[in-house]
Amino acid sequence: MSRKQETVRVTIVGFGYVGRGVAEVIKRKHDAIARKHGIDLTIVGIADLYGSIVNENGLSEEEIMNLRTGKNLKDISSRDVIKEVEHEVMVEATPTNVDNGEPGLTHVLTALESDRHVVTSNKGPIALEYKRVTELAAKRGKELRFEASVGGAMPIISLVRENLAGNGIISIEGILNGTCNYILTRMAEEKLPYEHVLKEAQGLGIAEADPSKDIEGIDTAVKLVILANSIFDMNTAYKEVEVTGITEITPEALKLADDEGYVIKLIGEVDRDGSLKVAPRLVPKGNPLNVGGTLNVATIKTDLAGEITVIGKGAGPIEAASAILSDIIGIYT
Amino acid sequence: MSRKQETVRVTIVGFGYVGRGVAEVIKRKHDAIARKHGIDLTIVGIADLYGSIVNENGLSEEEIMNLRTGKNLKDISSRDVIKEVEHEVMVEATPTNVDNGEPGLTHVLTALESDRHVVTSNKGPIALEYKRVTELAAKRGKELRFEASVGGAMPIISLVRENLAGNGIISIEGILNGTCNYILTRMAEEKLPYEHVLKEAQGLGIAEADPSKDIEGIDTAVKLVILANSIFDMNTAYKEVEVTGITEITPEALKLADDEGYVIKLIGEVDRDGSLKVAPRLVPKGNPLNVGGTLNVATIKTDLAGEITVIGKGAGPIEAASAILSDIIGIYT
Repeated sequence: MSRKQETVRVTIVGFGYVGRGVAEVIKRKHDAIARKHGIDLTIVGIADLYGSIVNENGLSEEEIMNLRTGKNLKDISSRDVIKEVEHEVMVEATPTNVDNGEPGLTHVLTALESDRHVVTSNKGPIALEYKRVTELAAKRGKELRFEASVGGAMPIISLVRENLAGNGIISIEGILNGTCNYILTRMAEEKLPYEHVLKEAQGLGIAEADPSKDIEGIDTAVKLVILANSIFDMNTAYKEVEVTGITEITPEALKLADDEGYVIKLIGEVDRDGSLKVAPRLVPKGNPLNVGGTLNVATIKTDLAGEITVIGKGAGPIEAASAILSDIIGIYT
Repeated sequence: MSRKQETVRVTIVGFGYVGRGVAEVIKRKHDAIARKHGIDLTIVGIADLYGSIVNENGLSEEEIMNLRTGKNLKDISSRDVIKEVEHEVMVEATPTNVDNGEPGLTHVLTALESDRHVVTSNKGPIALEYKRVTELAAKRGKELRFEASVGGAMPIISLVRENLAGNGIISIEGILNGTCNYILTRMAEEKLPYEHVLKEAQGLGIAEADPSKDIEGIDTAVKLVILANSIFDMNTAYKEVEVTGITEITPEALKLADDEGYVIKLIGEVDRDGSLKVAPRLVPKGNPLNVGGTLNVATIKTDLAGEITVIGKGAGPIEAASAILSDIIGIYT
């Protein structure tokens, strides 16, 4: 395509595994994106707890490496990078905090007030302060996109908003947490008890040292709230979701289900009447929601298209970066 | 959202089951689309083999009924409706002709030359003359969208182009024909021979009286060519696809597969190296491609997001209209 090249300057705030993934894919994909979409993506600043690096002409690989090794960092706060460095898109990739959304919330608000578009993988600000951040974005005429916050590489928010634009959405149900799915899949396959499989998952880096947010269903509830707010125009919070986790599920229950042609999955469901629920559910083996391993899946019930199901990898730095990159491109195309 | 209302005048060319579905959903969804997307969709002309109706202020339900009963039709050709009636979007919904693409091809070319956007469910022009129609659209600065031509309500073309925009696409494989999927699913479930299930499918309206295009894999090949041309920038035709249909599959083969944990599905696959193939394949039961009944499914292999699978209804007038409606909205949002 023969579009004019447009320079899009990006900052990355939060340089953990998602932020690094974003830097990595922008480098890897720079030329292909320029060719295909006419966008010249340039990273002009990266900010982390440990310091910041800034280069208005684009950060070199060496400069980015410095951030990882801690060399030659500048003592500029994330907020100042967002406010002072000239750029168009701020990528917010700090860890989710479901108590008060910080520091992500401050980053998002500061960026919008400074007239930057925002693309984020951070669930906190979207789950806790959806109305506030989207109203500010609308007021400033800026975009706020957060595909990476639900389902990682699996497109769901943009799928519903764009590809199913003509449809009324009746409900969404799915597996939104790969850790729980892995544990339940392994328990069923190997007939092993919960504690054993949890340890295995922790050893593989699939479950965190403190797995409570995943296994108690809180992570699923937070993602469900993001879908409720962004797709069903609700204004809800995760504490209002009825949540049951997977800690009480036994190999015997999985065996019983199996004998009857079912699997047990931790399903989050939201419908347009405002009901939100996270709980283990019996899923027929032939149902598209029956996906194994760490996969995520969502079935969207619509009034015209019927049921649409999408399956993809719910986690991983490159997968999250894929969603972030598509969000950035989506702002300009 | 408080967007300004924009009037979008639409003509529908071809008033079979898809065209009627489009008229039906535009009527049903008019107010919701105006509210949500700021678009005032107005059908100003419908043309069919039997005649046309035109009303620049928007056709009434009674006028649309006349087209179905043959009353009060005007003797204006489809081409003249496309050329002479003032409108922004021409919906081409005549039946697919895989020999020369007509009359769809002429409709699409005429509309683009008359500076209309085109949204179509017709596989012919896209599979046979992709380069010609897309180059004309680019030259006239008009949009040409055809999500409904592959997978019905299942989003795939826009999913790849928009939601996976940052990704390089490695391959796409899937079940793109609901008739074949229904026949193979029923044969496996009921251990019935091919001929028996085909008759059943014909009785249910799932297979046509002459089912050859479906069961010989031609319909799948045509859809595969649309994916190859539009997603992989190829310039290929369905006669270049290596095709094997499902007529030789026996209940015994399905039973053997079942014993080993597999199902047999008619899979179309295209990869970025230019290989295109349609053939029955063994699919592990746990694979996301294992969907039953008349469902369609596609797995998209990408370089960043990994594998994304989408499942949906591949046929039906309202389902096709859903894709057409989302395409129309996509032009304006």
